[in-house]
Amino acid sequence: MTDIAETLLAFSEKLADLSRAMLQAATRDALRIDLKEDASFVTATDRSVEARLREEIRSAFPDHGIQGEEHGSEQLDAEFVWVLDPIDGTAAWIAGIPVYGTLISVARGGRPLTGVIDLPATGERATGISGRGAWYNGSPTRCRKGTALADAYMTSSNPRFIPEPDRVPFSRLDEAVRFTQYGGSCYAYACLARGRTDLAVDAGFDTYDLFAPTAIIEGAGGIVTDWQGAPLDLDWRGRVIAAGDESLHAQALARLQER
Amino acid sequence: MTDIAETLLAFSEKLADLSRAMLQAATRDALRIDLKEDASFVTATDRSVEARLREEIRSAFPDHGIQGEEHGSEQLDAEFVWVLDPIDGTAAWIAGIPVYGTLISVARGGRPLTGVIDLPATGERATGISGRGAWYNGSPTRCRKGTALADAYMTSSNPRFIPEPDRVPFSRLDEAVRFTQYGGSCYAYACLARGRTDLAVDAGFDTYDLFAPTAIIEGAGGIVTDWQGAPLDLDWRGRVIAAGDESLHAQALARLQER
Repeated sequence: MTDIAETLLAFSEKLADLSRAMLQAATRDALRIDLKEDASFVTATDRSVEARLREEIRSAFPDHGIQGEEHGSEQLDAEFVWVLDPIDGTAAWIAGIPVYGTLISVARGGRPLTGVIDLPATGERATGISGRGAWYNGSPTRCRKGTALADAYMTSSNPRFIPEPDRVPFSRLDEAVRFTQYGGSCYAYACLARGRTDLAVDAGFDTYDLFAPTAIIEGAGGIVTDWQGAPLDLDWRGRVIAAGDESLHAQALARLQER
Repeated sequence: MTDIAETLLAFSEKLADLSRAMLQAATRDALRIDLKEDASFVTATDRSVEARLREEIRSAFPDHGIQGEEHGSEQLDAEFVWVLDPIDGTAAWIAGIPVYGTLISVARGGRPLTGVIDLPATGERATGISGRGAWYNGSPTRCRKGTALADAYMTSSNPRFIPEPDRVPFSRLDEAVRFTQYGGSCYAYACLARGRTDLAVDAGFDTYDLFAPTAIIEGAGGIVTDWQGAPLDLDWRGRVIAAGDESLHAQALARLQER
């Protein structure tokens, strides 16, 4: 018997098939025009993909809520809320750097339940159900365990995205790990779920950036919190630390919190 | 009739077919062992790919020189010198972030003549002959022209790679452009040659990181110099600024040189 999480994840994968086809079909000319028109790196493709996914969700699950990067929120008091980012890593998408992706999550009671990171440039996909399991291209995947802080491979999106007051704690952690790779956007979170990296730390983010990665990493045995150690919910904004290993998470969190 | 540059580029592509097959066949277990053994992110694959390429070059062109990231230099006084980076973006390679690649260049009289950026994760390839032409997946490609500095899309590898004294001028330029995407390694230079980005700025680099991108970008109508405005030769080390457009290059260079 298929339970509700499995049903929602299966539907999310159908949505990801749609978004992947739309992203792969987008022409370079369309991209370039939008780059000129819009100051915040939002392309027409971001908007049309999200509109299409919302239409499918409303039709299949009319009593569910939706929160999306481009078209706002509706019915956030519903038991199930879809959290969508049509293109995570829009800057990478504009340049053609293959680390962008579509993020589709369903939250239950405000907490990430299921997640899909779809990676159209390489044709890869990470999926997960918080606390239950995670899959990479359909095969079960687990986070890496037992890495010491000094050996940790960390990722972060962009040093400029980190608000000024958060840069000192971030640098403290950055100096404690072995290496920090920047610019991976959602691809980097998929690498964490696959056990290829150990830590992902960002600030200045929103639910649509993190709910899908959180459900997947929590499904792969990892842990995702804010910089106070609290789990992410629909009211969360800003700072996130994701780790494959609980003890590594605690050590990294301590670095962020030092005075 | 095929001239020497075309012959060398065709042979470089055969080498890139070999390196691509070796990178695609490398197992994740091999990667993980090397990550533990070596402090500087060099994997066994880096070493074995370069050794294999050198063997092919020595056999086909015994009077040519070779400079490689992993196995040093030989016959640097030869008219033609092969400049090799078996895996550019080794950190990305270790994590599985699809921006790493193999760089193969031939220098003539110390200057980049031909270049290949092979991108095994996505199956893409940029090639070029300095001053003559550049190709992306076999189709002619050109740099983007006419972007204003304030609208420029810049890339840079990693803020930590930039030596301390170069960070002030780098930040000045970073603040003058529209956006800086980090972490693209050689993929970002291929994007510049395709006209998808406008500027690429790095410091702390070596010939094997930049000779292949330089030949390609110079073939695509762009310009590549050090931060003094001098072209790259075999004695060059350190700081590089690549631009699709000559006037943009001059404006960006002026920002780096302000006092």
